[in-house]
Amino acid sequence: MRYQRPKGTADILPGESEQWQFVEETARMLFSDYRYQEIRTPMFESFDVFSRTSGETSDIVTKEMYDFYDKGDRHITLRPEGTAGVVRSFVENKLFGPDTPKPVKMFYMGPMFRYERPQSGRLREFHQIGVEAFGSESPQLDVEVISMAVDYLRHLGIDDLRIAINTLGDKETRSNYRQALIDYLEPHFEELSDDSKERLHKNPLRVLDSKAPEDQLIVDGAPSILDYLTDDAQNHFDKVTRMLDGLGIKYDVDHTMVRGLDYYNHTIFEIMANAKELGEGYTTICAGGRYDGLVEELGGPQMPGVGFGLGVERLLLLMNSKKFVFPNFNALDAYVVGIGEEASLEAFKVVQALRDNGFSADKDYLDRKPKAQFKSADKLNAKFTLTIGEKELENNTIHLKNMADGKEITVGIDDVKTRFAELLNEFDSDNL
Amino acid sequence: MRYQRPKGTADILPGESEQWQFVEETARMLFSDYRYQEIRTPMFESFDVFSRTSGETSDIVTKEMYDFYDKGDRHITLRPEGTAGVVRSFVENKLFGPDTPKPVKMFYMGPMFRYERPQSGRLREFHQIGVEAFGSESPQLDVEVISMAVDYLRHLGIDDLRIAINTLGDKETRSNYRQALIDYLEPHFEELSDDSKERLHKNPLRVLDSKAPEDQLIVDGAPSILDYLTDDAQNHFDKVTRMLDGLGIKYDVDHTMVRGLDYYNHTIFEIMANAKELGEGYTTICAGGRYDGLVEELGGPQMPGVGFGLGVERLLLLMNSKKFVFPNFNALDAYVVGIGEEASLEAFKVVQALRDNGFSADKDYLDRKPKAQFKSADKLNAKFTLTIGEKELENNTIHLKNMADGKEITVGIDDVKTRFAELLNEFDSDNL
Repeated sequence: MRYQRPKGTADILPGESEQWQFVEETARMLFSDYRYQEIRTPMFESFDVFSRTSGETSDIVTKEMYDFYDKGDRHITLRPEGTAGVVRSFVENKLFGPDTPKPVKMFYMGPMFRYERPQSGRLREFHQIGVEAFGSESPQLDVEVISMAVDYLRHLGIDDLRIAINTLGDKETRSNYRQALIDYLEPHFEELSDDSKERLHKNPLRVLDSKAPEDQLIVDGAPSILDYLTDDAQNHFDKVTRMLDGLGIKYDVDHTMVRGLDYYNHTIFEIMANAKELGEGYTTICAGGRYDGLVEELGGPQMPGVGFGLGVERLLLLMNSKKFVFPNFNALDAYVVGIGEEASLEAFKVVQALRDNGFSADKDYLDRKPKAQFKSADKLNAKFTLTIGEKELENNTIHLKNMADGKEITVGIDDVKTRFAELLNEFDSDNL
Repeated sequence: MRYQRPKGTADILPGESEQWQFVEETARMLFSDYRYQEIRTPMFESFDVFSRTSGETSDIVTKEMYDFYDKGDRHITLRPEGTAGVVRSFVENKLFGPDTPKPVKMFYMGPMFRYERPQSGRLREFHQIGVEAFGSESPQLDVEVISMAVDYLRHLGIDDLRIAINTLGDKETRSNYRQALIDYLEPHFEELSDDSKERLHKNPLRVLDSKAPEDQLIVDGAPSILDYLTDDAQNHFDKVTRMLDGLGIKYDVDHTMVRGLDYYNHTIFEIMANAKELGEGYTTICAGGRYDGLVEELGGPQMPGVGFGLGVERLLLLMNSKKFVFPNFNALDAYVVGIGEEASLEAFKVVQALRDNGFSADKDYLDRKPKAQFKSADKLNAKFTLTIGEKELENNTIHLKNMADGKEITVGIDDVKTRFAELLNEFDSDNL
C-alpha cells in the first residue's frame, strides 16, 4: 500500500530545505538588528481566538478555518495566521506589564493552516514569517515595520517592489466613513454581489475589498476614507508618509485598500512584486498595518500594535523566478575513501575525527569499490579526497588530494585526525 | 474575556526562544558536518501512516493519537513523532531511487503532538529533533548515528551520559526469540498486568517494556534476546560494539530494552542523563535504532534505515539545570537617543542607517524624556549610546559613548550613517 501526504500539504526535501533555512536565518539575523525577538505559539488555538480577532465576517472565519473538535470536545483551530496567537500569548503572559520594555518587538515564523477548496491551488498547510510590535503609537514604529519588510526583501534579492499604503484612521474616522460608505452603497444595493450585500451593513469597508467585477465598478465611485480623517488620523498619516519620503522609500497611497482583516486601524500597507510565477501583474507578497484595538479585544489593556506577515512559499517562488543564488550550506570538506574492510574502519575513524574538529566529512557506507567511492567524492563536491589503501594503513599515513587544483600529498594519519586545519594551511602554502 | 492557550501547549517567549534557536542552529550545523540535510514534512498525516508504522498495539496508537476527522471526513492525525512522516515522504518522493546517493541522510525538527492525559504532566504539543539515514545496512552507520547524538549532546554541554544499547536482531532472531518469550511468559499468564496479557500473543517483546511492577518481576527471569541471535545478527552487533569501543564511546548492553515502537531491528539505543529536573536517576533523553523494514512497510522497496529522536523540552530542561551559558544573540550595538521631536526623527534615520549596515540598533518610540531613553540604553545593554541634542542637530554631529569604558566623542552624523564600523575602529585605537 502507498501512502500520500494529506491534500494541500507539501514535503520540503533536501535541496529545497536549504532555501527555507536561508530565508529564515536571514529573517532571524535582520530582525535581531531591529531588536525583534522570536515568539513561538502553539500550532492550534481555541476557535474563539480567531473568530474574535479576524472578524466574524472575514473569509478566514466563514470559509477557511481548519477547525475540529478534539477528544475533550474543545473547538480547536489549526492557526490560520500568526497575529492572533501572538496577541493571545502577549496578553496571557502579561507582556503588557511594566517589566517588559515597550515597544515589545517580536517575530514569528512557521506553518499556518487553512482548509481551502483544493481548486484554488493554495496550500492547506503554508508558512508565514511575521513581526508584531506592541506598546507604541508612534508613526515611527509604522515606518520601522515597513522599512524592515523592505530591508528583508532586499536582502533576499527582491528590490523591484511596489508599496501601497493607506490609513483606516481612528475610531471616529471609521465611524464617519462607514456611514458615508453605507449612504453611497445603499442606492446600489441591487447591483452588488451577494457577498457584498451581506457585508454592506455588517462591515461595509470590506465591500471595497471585493474582487467581484460588479462590485468593483461601484467601488470605483465610492467616497475616499482620506476625506474623512480626523485631525489626529491625518497627522499620524502625514508623519508616516513624510518619514518614508525621508528614508527614500517609494510608495503609492491607495485609498481603496482595506485589508481582509477587521482589526486594522491607521496605517495599513501591502508590498507587491511583479513575477509571472505569482500571477498577472503586481501581486502582494507582504502585508500589514496597525491594530491598536487588538490587545484589548483579546482581554488585555488598551495597547497599540503594528506588524506585518508574509508568505514563505510565495517568497521562495519569487526568489527562484529571479534566479537568486542561495549560499551552499552543504559543501563537503572531506570525503574519505577506504580500500578494503580494515581501511574502511580506519576511514570511519578519520571521518569522525574530522567532524569532531568542525569539518564536514563523509565516507562510503555500502562496501563499494574504490572507483565508486571516488565517484561519490566527486558527486558530493568534496573539497578534499582522502584515501587509505593497504600501503597507507601499513605506514599510518593517508593520501590527500585537493579536488580544486589536483594537488596531492601523503601525510601522517594522526595529523589529519588532530590538526587538519593547520595541515591544509601548510599544504596550501607549499610548506609540506 | 480572557483567552488561554489550549491545554497541554506552551508559549515560547523572547528570552527563552533564543535557547531554542541555539539548540536548533547547533543541530543544523553539526548534522551538516555529518552530511545530514533537513527534511520538513507536514504537521499532520493520514491516521494510517502512524497506525501502520508505530504498530497497532503501541501506546502511541492505542492511547495517545491526536487524531480527528477533517471537513472532508478524512481521518487525520497531528504527527505524534517524526520518523513515520519522513519515511512516508521518502517513499512518496521516490528518494529510494538511483538519483539520490545512498545513504540518504536527513534530519528534522519541529512540533509533535500527543493527546495525553493532562495528569501525566506531559505536553500535548512538544518538540523533537531527529535524524534518519536510509539505504545502508552497514553497522558503521549505526555507530555514526549514535556518535552524532553523543557529539550533539556534548556540544550542548551534556557529557555525563549513560548509553544503553541492545540488538533486536533480524527477522529469524525475532521469530525464534518471540517463541521463546511466549514459552516463558505463558506459565506466568495470570500474574501479568492486563496490558501485558493482551500483548503476550500479539507482541510479546513489548511485555519486556512494561512498567507495571507485577510484570517487572517476571521479566527479570525472561530469556535474553542475545542468546537467540543468528550469526548475521551477532556479527552486526559485534561490529557495532567494537566500533564504539574504537571511538572511545562507553555504553552498557541492556538485553531487556526493546523500545516502544514495533519497527526496530538490529541495533537500538537509548542515551540517558541524570538530572533531578528530569526525574529520579538516569532518564532517557535520546533514543533510536535500526528499522530495516519500515520503508517497505510504507509501500517502498526493501531498504534499510537507522535514526534517532530526542525531545527538545527535556534537552533544554537538562541544559538549564546544568547552568549552560547560552550565547547572547540579542546584544544591541547601538541605542540612539534623540532629544526633542526633530532630533527623534534624525535618531530614527541614524538607527535605520546603522541597521542597513548590519548593526543592531534601536531607539525610543514613546516620546520619552532623555533620562528615560538613557535608562533604556542601559537596560538593553547597548554597546554604544549615541545622542542627538539641539547642538548636535545644528552641527550635523552626534555624540558617541562606549558603554564599556565610558569613552566619549562627538563625530559627524554622516560618518555614523555610512561608515560606523570604520569609525569604531578609529575610536578604539584613539585615532579620532
